[in-house]
Amino acid sequence: MTDLHIPVHTAIPAPLPLASVAIDDPFWSPRIEVVREKTIPFEYHQFDTLGHLRALKHQPAEKDPRPHIFWESDVAKWIEAASFTLATHPDPELDARLDGVIDLLAGAQLPDGYLNTFFTVVEPENRFTDLRDAHELYCAGHLIEAAVAHFEATGKRTLLAIMVRYADYIGTVFGRGPGQIRGYDGHEEIELALVKLARVTGEQRYLDLASFFIEERGQEPYFFDLEAAKRGTPGWFASHFPGDDHPGRTREYLQAHAPVREQPEAVGHSVRAMYLYAAMADLAREQEDSSLLEACKRLWRHLTTRRMYVTGGIGSSADNEGFTTDFDLPEERAYAETCAAIGLVMWAERMLRIDRDRAYGDIMELALYNGVLAGLSHDGTTFFYVNPLASRGGVERHEWFDVACCPPNLARLLSSLGSYAFHATPAELTVHLFISGTLRIPMGDEIDAGEAVVKLTSNYPWDGTVTMTVERAPSVPYALSFRVPAWSREPVVRVVGPAGSVTDVSTEVGADGYVSVLRQWTDGDTLTFELDVSARRMWADPQLDSSAQRVVIARGPLVYAIEEADNGSGLSELRLPRDAELSEIRLDALPDVVGVRATGVRMEHPGEGLYRSEAPVAHPAEVTMVPYFSWANRGPGEMLVWQREDQG
Amino acid sequence: MTDLHIPVHTAIPAPLPLASVAIDDPFWSPRIEVVREKTIPFEYHQFDTLGHLRALKHQPAEKDPRPHIFWESDVAKWIEAASFTLATHPDPELDARLDGVIDLLAGAQLPDGYLNTFFTVVEPENRFTDLRDAHELYCAGHLIEAAVAHFEATGKRTLLAIMVRYADYIGTVFGRGPGQIRGYDGHEEIELALVKLARVTGEQRYLDLASFFIEERGQEPYFFDLEAAKRGTPGWFASHFPGDDHPGRTREYLQAHAPVREQPEAVGHSVRAMYLYAAMADLAREQEDSSLLEACKRLWRHLTTRRMYVTGGIGSSADNEGFTTDFDLPEERAYAETCAAIGLVMWAERMLRIDRDRAYGDIMELALYNGVLAGLSHDGTTFFYVNPLASRGGVERHEWFDVACCPPNLARLLSSLGSYAFHATPAELTVHLFISGTLRIPMGDEIDAGEAVVKLTSNYPWDGTVTMTVERAPSVPYALSFRVPAWSREPVVRVVGPAGSVTDVSTEVGADGYVSVLRQWTDGDTLTFELDVSARRMWADPQLDSSAQRVVIARGPLVYAIEEADNGSGLSELRLPRDAELSEIRLDALPDVVGVRATGVRMEHPGEGLYRSEAPVAHPAEVTMVPYFSWANRGPGEMLVWQREDQG
Repeated sequence: MTDLHIPVHTAIPAPLPLASVAIDDPFWSPRIEVVREKTIPFEYHQFDTLGHLRALKHQPAEKDPRPHIFWESDVAKWIEAASFTLATHPDPELDARLDGVIDLLAGAQLPDGYLNTFFTVVEPENRFTDLRDAHELYCAGHLIEAAVAHFEATGKRTLLAIMVRYADYIGTVFGRGPGQIRGYDGHEEIELALVKLARVTGEQRYLDLASFFIEERGQEPYFFDLEAAKRGTPGWFASHFPGDDHPGRTREYLQAHAPVREQPEAVGHSVRAMYLYAAMADLAREQEDSSLLEACKRLWRHLTTRRMYVTGGIGSSADNEGFTTDFDLPEERAYAETCAAIGLVMWAERMLRIDRDRAYGDIMELALYNGVLAGLSHDGTTFFYVNPLASRGGVERHEWFDVACCPPNLARLLSSLGSYAFHATPAELTVHLFISGTLRIPMGDEIDAGEAVVKLTSNYPWDGTVTMTVERAPSVPYALSFRVPAWSREPVVRVVGPAGSVTDVSTEVGADGYVSVLRQWTDGDTLTFELDVSARRMWADPQLDSSAQRVVIARGPLVYAIEEADNGSGLSELRLPRDAELSEIRLDALPDVVGVRATGVRMEHPGEGLYRSEAPVAHPAEVTMVPYFSWANRGPGEMLVWQREDQG
Repeated sequence: MTDLHIPVHTAIPAPLPLASVAIDDPFWSPRIEVVREKTIPFEYHQFDTLGHLRALKHQPAEKDPRPHIFWESDVAKWIEAASFTLATHPDPELDARLDGVIDLLAGAQLPDGYLNTFFTVVEPENRFTDLRDAHELYCAGHLIEAAVAHFEATGKRTLLAIMVRYADYIGTVFGRGPGQIRGYDGHEEIELALVKLARVTGEQRYLDLASFFIEERGQEPYFFDLEAAKRGTPGWFASHFPGDDHPGRTREYLQAHAPVREQPEAVGHSVRAMYLYAAMADLAREQEDSSLLEACKRLWRHLTTRRMYVTGGIGSSADNEGFTTDFDLPEERAYAETCAAIGLVMWAERMLRIDRDRAYGDIMELALYNGVLAGLSHDGTTFFYVNPLASRGGVERHEWFDVACCPPNLARLLSSLGSYAFHATPAELTVHLFISGTLRIPMGDEIDAGEAVVKLTSNYPWDGTVTMTVERAPSVPYALSFRVPAWSREPVVRVVGPAGSVTDVSTEVGADGYVSVLRQWTDGDTLTFELDVSARRMWADPQLDSSAQRVVIARGPLVYAIEEADNGSGLSELRLPRDAELSEIRLDALPDVVGVRATGVRMEHPGEGLYRSEAPVAHPAEVTMVPYFSWANRGPGEMLVWQREDQG
């Protein structure tokens, strides 16, 4: 069906093909099903309503409906998510629907390969004149990602061929040669997409083009200044731009203030930053570029030790949808966009491919189960774009149609979750995330090596017990490895043979935070271990001033919050003593989650007036905590992640 | 020397004439001297440098130096403060300098009475066309206050005559008659000035004009809308105006969103609000208008129970130099302009004249000793315009020349402090503030009633002992009354006769929070009492979220803060246990203040990373507190008013 090369295994760990990962997980599968059954069809319906698809049929100068400059990226994210679902859930109707949309894209592509309806029919004279704001390469990047996903899921080269033509055209327009534009997009995205295209086509030139965009970024003279001077008109989003009268801030907003290798801090628009850093990690890996990897590590350290919420949310300010200053992590007015947490998951997964270290795995998991997942209601139909860590009430998720980017991004992520959970090489399967399902692992280039089949079973994150059954064993010694989160004690690892023989595997958590069990497996062997997901406390760096005298409760990867629904209003009156025992409970109102309960105190404030001579008085009070991702599923009441602590 | 009537005593308590109050106070006198010896001469020097005085000599169309629309108000505040000092400290040189400036003002006045250099020489065509922004009546108001002060201090009618002419002209321009402007100034000030003019001239028409301005304010159709439509150009400060595209917010900024009697909340620009409310209180008193008084009381309740800092500072936001929402009192980014706290003192004094209630006296004192006084360095030469309640360092007072309004306003207040401290009637002297000095109290209209002389002595606020010696006794039974602050226990009151006989006066604190000792006094009688100024704790209304798990230490009227200079950096790491004993200390570095010390704890945060599994650990630490007004006199270190409390 295809003559292109899909390198499932190389020496560098990589995700398994999605078709080889059949997720069957009590926690995630229902959410993935909602994406497949509701989100993806609804998004297609939206295209019909809004005109995304009709616009693709426009003739030159046809402007009704007037396409938006982002529309191709919306369509692309839908194609990508739909393709991901097709990989594991064949659906002829969806397959045909995808073919139809791809036909439209083929028809919209110009003879030179260019593909962007707005700049084809509305402003053809302005093609590639406003890289800073107009998102053309951003849209191209999403279409490339869609093409790669569609090809990998279906084997069809239809969209891939379109995007190869477009990418080749972009390669002629951009570069350091005479007459070429020596610039890059204001919204990073094409860089990581080109790496995917290079991988799936085996063509070095796409890596080179990605590298060009990455290396040009932030060089002086600043491209966006040159571009603006040449164009002579304000950028598309000039009026919305934060600090357009402060060039330095605008450059930081775009991560274009310095060459990427010299950027010491995570700055600017947080989604853009994540896409850039993910692409930097991609290139560091593909080109074995250690100084680029060092830049990634420096940015990671900065982000995760100074600018990340305890939920893995990032980008604290709505003003720039991004970063502000170190340790500026306001809770109630946190921005912490769902898409930015998704971007952090994307970056972390790429770092893990290069450098298996639980520093990345733990934060990928943290962001996924908290900062990302809170974006989605329990029933999967409403969404948070912004994720505060405290609410005085009145905050609710919105229906799909209110927000443009987060639901499609959630759809992309959830329908490709297997790519984040598991990495494989011909010698080792690494489990980064404890998601149940069956993995078919090709055993390398030798035709007859066949595949191994490993089934992972757990009730994670509620329960820490994980079993991995080797349903079909590799023909060679093979390592099964898994992350031991920093919050867990070292687990006892056992291998249970098909006949019931139990072996305690003498192994230690490695310096990378992973346990590896290397052996010649027998069909039916089961590896079991138990992570300690019992409830625990976390405290903050004292430089986080909103966190003084506060504590966060977590259980496994889940950060917990207190809600008005369980605790009444006035959550800031509750205090959790340092020594209060944390016990597990089941809540009638949230039957699917494990809650945590403790005996705390509720403060009463006798007296009157703004300032009082009467001291607050403590009364015993039960405090009930639920996972942060569960909040606002029972009405828009108060919520608090950082509980007030009595040191006792 | 004058044929005008100065009503020293009426049935309604009023301040004594400044000439009758000789302050000799260890706490206040040095500060008042700095005003007299440095601030007032320096301000005059500034006028020379900047051109305020030269501009008063401008011929029509003469524009160098170009006068600013505010300049007359600067000159007016200087005249007022200088006159106040002349009342008690005769100074022929200053007297002559005042005469010179008043000559210039006389020369600058137009034949019709109008007096405002900018609108005389720069934009004569725009006189009274931009009441919202151009501050014309505001400047007129300050000149009227200056004229009254100059007359009362010197008996000279020179400036008073000028301002009577101007006020009469204003009375022809503004009103409800045909051809008159039915409007009011965007910055309240003329209203309270006209009440003073009415009092000193005995002319009802100035009260009527003040009443017109007050009653028109906020009526529909909104005057500023009509004015803008008529003018057809943006207002003077249109580009600076917060929310000029939100008419409701702009109206609230100007307290012009509703008729004043229907305004339930203190809103908008805080200095403007205070001047309005002070004028409302003035009119309520002069016109015995109980519904206007009710409006004042409602606004007072709202302000002091929802929008006032524990220092008496008000107006939490720099955006509008004013109020935001209830309980929104950020500490580090507090605005709390010095002038706004001065305005609160002004309003409180007016409320006390109508309704002697320590609710007003306590807050007048609180604002004076904290929110106002922090505006001034110990040496009286540098100033805070903005008064945060917490600082991470780097915040310092500025020299006079950096700020326009607070130093002159401080100069006015300090040089007339006696007016705020003492109220008198023919039957009673009331001490609102415990400021040492000698008071000469006219004994009413009977020519031969003469005057009483009372000398007040104390080392307040450091010490709570106050003595009042009746140096010359009234010829009739007379009440000496004083406020017992709500924070003090009820004092024992003793009268010591000239021969040493001691009488415990059997008296109780009245419902108004004042003690009154009514008797026939003998020359040399001394009334003594001791207020309890020992250090105490205060806690906040739980709706003030920045105050949870926090405590403020106060001592007498002084709010205390912790500073880096005494406690090292990292002030938010200190905890004050609920039961820690508060002891008094003397600090070598601040010899003039009484400090407070307690054994608290300093938190250590073991572990690494933004979020940690290691709990903070408490170590014993001495915590040293100094008066809030003293902060930032030893370098721009960290400071914190709301200390973190361990409930213990």
